[in-house]
Amino acid sequence: MQANGTLLFPAINVNDSVTKSKFDNLYGCRHSLPDGLMRATDVMIAGKIAVVCGYGDVDKGCAGALKQAGARVIATEIDPICALQALMEGIPVLTLEDVVSEADIFVTTTGNKNLIMIHHMKQMKNNAIVCNIGHFDNEIDVHGLETYPGVKRITIKPQTDRWVFPETNNSIIVLAEGRLMNLGCATGHPSFVMSCSFTNQVIAQLELWKERGTGKYEKKVYVLPKHLDEKVAALHLGKLGAKLTKLTPAQAAYISVPVDGPYKPPQYRY
Amino acid sequence: MQANGTLLFPAINVNDSVTKSKFDNLYGCRHSLPDGLMRATDVMIAGKIAVVCGYGDVDKGCAGALKQAGARVIATEIDPICALQALMEGIPVLTLEDVVSEADIFVTTTGNKNLIMIHHMKQMKNNAIVCNIGHFDNEIDVHGLETYPGVKRITIKPQTDRWVFPETNNSIIVLAEGRLMNLGCATGHPSFVMSCSFTNQVIAQLELWKERGTGKYEKKVYVLPKHLDEKVAALHLGKLGAKLTKLTPAQAAYISVPVDGPYKPPQYRY
Amino acid sequence: MQANGTLLFPAINVNDSVTKSKFDNLYGCRHSLPDGLMRATDVMIAGKIAVVCGYGDVDKGCAGALKQAGARVIATEIDPICALQALMEGIPVLTLEDVVSEADIFVTTTGNKNLIMIHHMKQMKNNAIVCNIGHFDNEIDVHGLETYPGVKRITIKPQTDRWVFPETNNSIIVLAEGRLMNLGCATGHPSFVMSCSFTNQVIAQLELWKERGTGKYEKKVYVLPKHLDEKVAALHLGKLGAKLTKLTPAQAAYISVPVDGPYKPPQYRY
Amino acid sequence: MQANGTLLFPAINVNDSVTKSKFDNLYGCRHSLPDGLMRATDVMIAGKIAVVCGYGDVDKGCAGALKQAGARVIATEIDPICALQALMEGIPVLTLEDVVSEADIFVTTTGNKNLIMIHHMKQMKNNAIVCNIGHFDNEIDVHGLETYPGVKRITIKPQTDRWVFPETNNSIIVLAEGRLMNLGCATGHPSFVMSCSFTNQVIAQLELWKERGTGKYEKKVYVLPKHLDEKVAALHLGKLGAKLTKLTPAQAAYISVPVDGPYKPPQYRY
Repeated sequence: MQANGTLLFPAINVNDSVTKSKFDNLYGCRHSLPDGLMRATDVMIAGKIAVVCGYGDVDKGCAGALKQAGARVIATEIDPICALQALMEGIPVLTLEDVVSEADIFVTTTGNKNLIMIHHMKQMKNNAIVCNIGHFDNEIDVHGLETYPGVKRITIKPQTDRWVFPETNNSIIVLAEGRLMNLGCATGHPSFVMSCSFTNQVIAQLELWKERGTGKYEKKVYVLPKHLDEKVAALHLGKLGAKLTKLTPAQAAYISVPVDGPYKPPQYRY
Repeated sequence: MQANGTLLFPAINVNDSVTKSKFDNLYGCRHSLPDGLMRATDVMIAGKIAVVCGYGDVDKGCAGALKQAGARVIATEIDPICALQALMEGIPVLTLEDVVSEADIFVTTTGNKNLIMIHHMKQMKNNAIVCNIGHFDNEIDVHGLETYPGVKRITIKPQTDRWVFPETNNSIIVLAEGRLMNLGCATGHPSFVMSCSFTNQVIAQLELWKERGTGKYEKKVYVLPKHLDEKVAALHLGKLGAKLTKLTPAQAAYISVPVDGPYKPPQYRY
Repeated sequence: MQANGTLLFPAINVNDSVTKSKFDNLYGCRHSLPDGLMRATDVMIAGKIAVVCGYGDVDKGCAGALKQAGARVIATEIDPICALQALMEGIPVLTLEDVVSEADIFVTTTGNKNLIMIHHMKQMKNNAIVCNIGHFDNEIDVHGLETYPGVKRITIKPQTDRWVFPETNNSIIVLAEGRLMNLGCATGHPSFVMSCSFTNQVIAQLELWKERGTGKYEKKVYVLPKHLDEKVAALHLGKLGAKLTKLTPAQAAYISVPVDGPYKPPQYRY
Repeated sequence: MQANGTLLFPAINVNDSVTKSKFDNLYGCRHSLPDGLMRATDVMIAGKIAVVCGYGDVDKGCAGALKQAGARVIATEIDPICALQALMEGIPVLTLEDVVSEADIFVTTTGNKNLIMIHHMKQMKNNAIVCNIGHFDNEIDVHGLETYPGVKRITIKPQTDRWVFPETNNSIIVLAEGRLMNLGCATGHPSFVMSCSFTNQVIAQLELWKERGTGKYEKKVYVLPKHLDEKVAALHLGKLGAKLTKLTPAQAAYISVPVDGPYKPPQYRY
């Protein structure tokens, strides 16, 4: 809309705030992926082979949680940088085809479509678990599954379905019908990390309202100014008992930042 | 120089490439900090209290390495966002004053100056280890230490000095005279991660040379184009046996990226 | 009963099998403690301070799970050996009194009684979570809580109660009325690790039946013979795709064990 | 000698003390394996595939250290119980044959002989690292390597040799000539954990001397009495700032132990 000139008012894209994308996506999923798996299936994660499709922020949280619970995690990636990050954490990067018949748990996390297709599902081990914590229910080919000739759906409980393939009598367990499993099978992210996300939204609205007459924001999409992103974080430190160090004026001058921040250039990656 | 109009030729700042800042700084230090500590002091890291001054990329590597080796890690931070990241990893954020008399190992990692001053060092436990893996030898107040009345320097071996305070007869162990301890006391980062950094430099030079007559680059400082940053990573995947997934044209269109990348917008944080 | 001569038949104490005590207790709790916490409270574990009372097998699982989820874990211990183990994993060992007013989550895991008393609970932070994954509901002083003058119980949902103290209006959240929280608030350990425990029971029964007329077992309590303990493990390897190495006769002779096991002396600790 | 009746005096086997076998072997190797690898080869451990032959106490330390440094660890095992422990930590259990041509680092840790033979070494990747942290230099077939027709030894530096196979011109890097690499290439375990081991020796000698006339010990081999094993641990807690909890008499009676210990039955595994 901005590119087309059809944006009617200034907007702030809080999804790209550090205190959203690097917190909610990462630490939220690190919590709610195992939560969803446990509530839906009670499966022992330790010892299992888990495939995480993608190694972005969401995936880093998911892969970390599964690894720490004792699973052997394998990542699939299209992006060589994210792939190299996975490798540096001891996570092999392979294609879904390489591992589809060996893994016990499959998680899609990409925001893309057509990750796990019906031809993959047919090759999986009996009772392999298939779920999505990325975006929409097109990461997993649920349509292909539903329309597969002779397939039988057995609902174990709401949001947990066993699908039996007629040729092999093998099943796969699909969570939340391919929709977000942490919402479908658990209660989503915990409130502390969502508070970071929602504080972003509130602070962005306050900022837009405060500056509504000053012309600071044109009819464009902005990211939240860095000092407000830092404010979101600062508001959450007290609950966890943290104490920040204060820069001296000499130190602030030495690294060319204001004493009260913002402390990092816009492109800093955290 | 760019701001002053005195830059004589186009330049690429490879330090801010993802495959430099998120690899060399992070994974390099995760390797070479414990390496330097072990070679210099043979200290058992497990069970000790370690203070890492800062929680940027370097610090995340250092804190991670110390934690995994069994130390209790405490971070100091000025930036609330980095502080909240530390907390999410189970690392408390306190001020140096809070912990100076309890910790066994102190590491500065900030690129700033005057982190650990003589008045801190005097309060440390006997044989506390003090070292720097940030930038220059002004993170630790070496000058204050050298000129402290009555202090005695006992060189244990090259790059490992014990400094005895006259009042208490307590010592601290200072590594590499406050300079980079991984270079002074060990052999720096391992070659694999340095290869990522140096590949950045070479590819940047080739790019500038190739485009020298095209006007693509003005007399400004650029970051390495994303597709070349991805190329650096891709060149390092084979050694680790990784296999990338290829986007289908439909998938590429769905997330609006070229099939061959670059895959992420410039502000993506990895 | 064995000591008194009143044991009426031979018995095998499968609780002390390696494949029970080092699996069910450890890996089971590593799974079901966070599961219970999440289902009961949806609390973000990352960033919180968690006190685990004890550092035995159960506690090692609990402390490990909480640490990996991003909590700062503190252990209390009476046994100096277990205490030193905690320290080697970066977990400080303190008394409950030291940390009672700072921690967010309290877990008892000891099999002893009177761990967390009413005078402790009164000092806790508002909404501190108190739960037991040890043995009986006397680890936490539930009676003291119930009979505290003016205390108010608010049942958030079954097995999750908020208790409000009249003086401060502060609450604590008590799970499963002080009974085993992984059973009360979640579904207990996952089936894979319980299969190890139950296989112990079945194999012990078969062994006693097979040897019922041979006089091998007197009217005493035995531990499961080592080769059967190993059999329990061996039966669970296939599901996880493991392949054992076979000793050559020369290797077996070199370490003085039979080629087919048992491979360890009785006192081996795993 | 005890079995043959040729033991001339009472002896205490301190190697089987908890504070020796579960500390020196485990936490010592967790420290000194990466130390030896780093000093000998400067290899980046992150991203590499490491094979640990065995998953006993030493191996648990080695595998843990390598995993935490970012390697993908694979264990080989003969004992199904240890194998299942590895799996519960996310470490696959395979045979050496399965992985010999893929791995980058090989570590033997078993105390057995003939683990890595010349026919294995010939199949390894170029510049694979082969080392031993178990017992003697017969875990790796050094003799087979030295006498291999046409093999060329290039000493990179003392204790680090590159062996070139004539057929392929491929090399392997052998550390410390197959002897203990943490002693050959680094400085062994750190002093804190060795203090636990040596305190065992001293306390055992004092005990034997004190009881020399009392008949408490016959001409047999004993393990260190549990209360002295606990004493070893207790003596090391102060340095790490730990505070033990004291049992009340009622608590001690409830679990049938003395207030001052020993706290665990002999067969407890820690």
